[in-house]
Amino acid sequence: MFITIAERINATRKNIRAAIESRDEAAIRAEAVNQAEAGATVIDVNGGTKPEEEKANLDWLLGIVAPAVRNPLCIDCADPELLEGAAERILEIRDAGVPSESLDPDGVPWLMINSISAEKERYDAVLPIALKYKASVLTLLMGDEGMPSDAADRIKTGRDLIPRLLNDGVKAGEIFIDPLIMPAGINTELGPQIFRTIRTLGDEFPGVRFTCGLTNVSHGLPVRPLLNRTFLTMLIASGLDSAILDPTDRRLTASLRAALALANMDPFCAGYINAFRNNLLDV
Amino acid sequence: MFITIAERINATRKNIRAAIESRDEAAIRAEAVNQAEAGATVIDVNGGTKPEEEKANLDWLLGIVAPAVRNPLCIDCADPELLEGAAERILEIRDAGVPSESLDPDGVPWLMINSISAEKERYDAVLPIALKYKASVLTLLMGDEGMPSDAADRIKTGRDLIPRLLNDGVKAGEIFIDPLIMPAGINTELGPQIFRTIRTLGDEFPGVRFTCGLTNVSHGLPVRPLLNRTFLTMLIASGLDSAILDPTDRRLTASLRAALALANMDPFCAGYINAFRNNLLDV
Repeated sequence: MFITIAERINATRKNIRAAIESRDEAAIRAEAVNQAEAGATVIDVNGGTKPEEEKANLDWLLGIVAPAVRNPLCIDCADPELLEGAAERILEIRDAGVPSESLDPDGVPWLMINSISAEKERYDAVLPIALKYKASVLTLLMGDEGMPSDAADRIKTGRDLIPRLLNDGVKAGEIFIDPLIMPAGINTELGPQIFRTIRTLGDEFPGVRFTCGLTNVSHGLPVRPLLNRTFLTMLIASGLDSAILDPTDRRLTASLRAALALANMDPFCAGYINAFRNNLLDV
Repeated sequence: MFITIAERINATRKNIRAAIESRDEAAIRAEAVNQAEAGATVIDVNGGTKPEEEKANLDWLLGIVAPAVRNPLCIDCADPELLEGAAERILEIRDAGVPSESLDPDGVPWLMINSISAEKERYDAVLPIALKYKASVLTLLMGDEGMPSDAADRIKTGRDLIPRLLNDGVKAGEIFIDPLIMPAGINTELGPQIFRTIRTLGDEFPGVRFTCGLTNVSHGLPVRPLLNRTFLTMLIASGLDSAILDPTDRRLTASLRAALALANMDPFCAGYINAFRNNLLDV
């Protein structure tokens, strides 16, 4: 199953920051519900305006989002202490314990953490939290040397990081590899580098999943939504099985549904045909 | 360079058949000019209404299309005798001999033949014509056993056919492999089968090109243009460097331009940016 991680509740977005600052509960609730109704699998929650306010923001956001929808949440936060606090808060709000299975029968995580990487300090701090809460981990192909520069860099990091995660007790299906998307207008080889990274690591580590954000790719180029949705379909042809995206973008999700039908990721094309019947494709 | 083969002048299309039957020169000329102005690389010409009329139709069509545009033509005809006659007719109309080079510096064929295959009779009859006229050959991954059923079938035929063509004197850049697209609604594995075929043969035979028609893939499914353009971008991620398509379909060509920019097949994204400046992307 293709896993969409809904990206809209993010404090770096202007209207979300404003809603956080004015403590506008209705606005945040509407973003959560709209994304869920648009078909999001997981809903990302990012409260990072200023570091000193992040804990209070995240608590407030989770207090609205966790009861408003039934979707699993993805806690998007760089601070391990806050990650742990957020996991506890979700359990408390939903009045539940850590489930016995991290993934449901369709392979959907009950909780995601955004993110872990090969950076030593981050890895050591985030891994125990992922294990304790049976959370799936968004895993950046990046180490202490900084951002990757090409496919070889990314593949090398993946070949180091994935076996370590598996060895440390994370299941293959809980690992969501993010190859880190950069602007194709600056590095025109970015696309083929990412296609190759996903194909290579996908062949070598069956069951591991691949996700990414899309919008960076079009930075600096015109008609960005066209590039973003085109890139999504090209990534799916290369083996992507999850994406961080805006599920309320109807043209993007129409392209996504078409790509899943064509990549044999939509049994009997039933999702595609159903979307047609609900007038979701003619956009 | 990505080579588009413009598909509209085809007697199996209703309005073209009517124009052929009524000998409507203006309609055919407009189709040729519109496709050229829309940016087609090569223009396909198919006159096959009834076998007994095909020669006269093809002569008449070439008499209009060859002088109307400067593009190379692709002769789309199953009869080797007619292929040879058509090549002679193009040389006569354009008042030229067979050029010394089959491909221009951008790799564009001066003439294409649609098609050759691994079927013994067709191979033996079409090969000498391709060599005599330095024509590039649309090469179907199909042998005497009939249509391929999966990726292994297609790859096997390619591994037999491509070395034979090379050995018989056809250059790699003159070979346009067509993996044969069938409806994804009937065989949902079709997409991954085609992606794998192109990747595998592309890795094994550098310089050989890959093309296909797009519309079969969506047969029987709703919102066919969405599936067709999505499939095109997914094929480009897999190594497709040519396609048989309608260059006047603005949403299709917008997707094509975005995919080429993202696949590093559009140096500096200049084609994409230029298309934006000419209002060709916001569709």
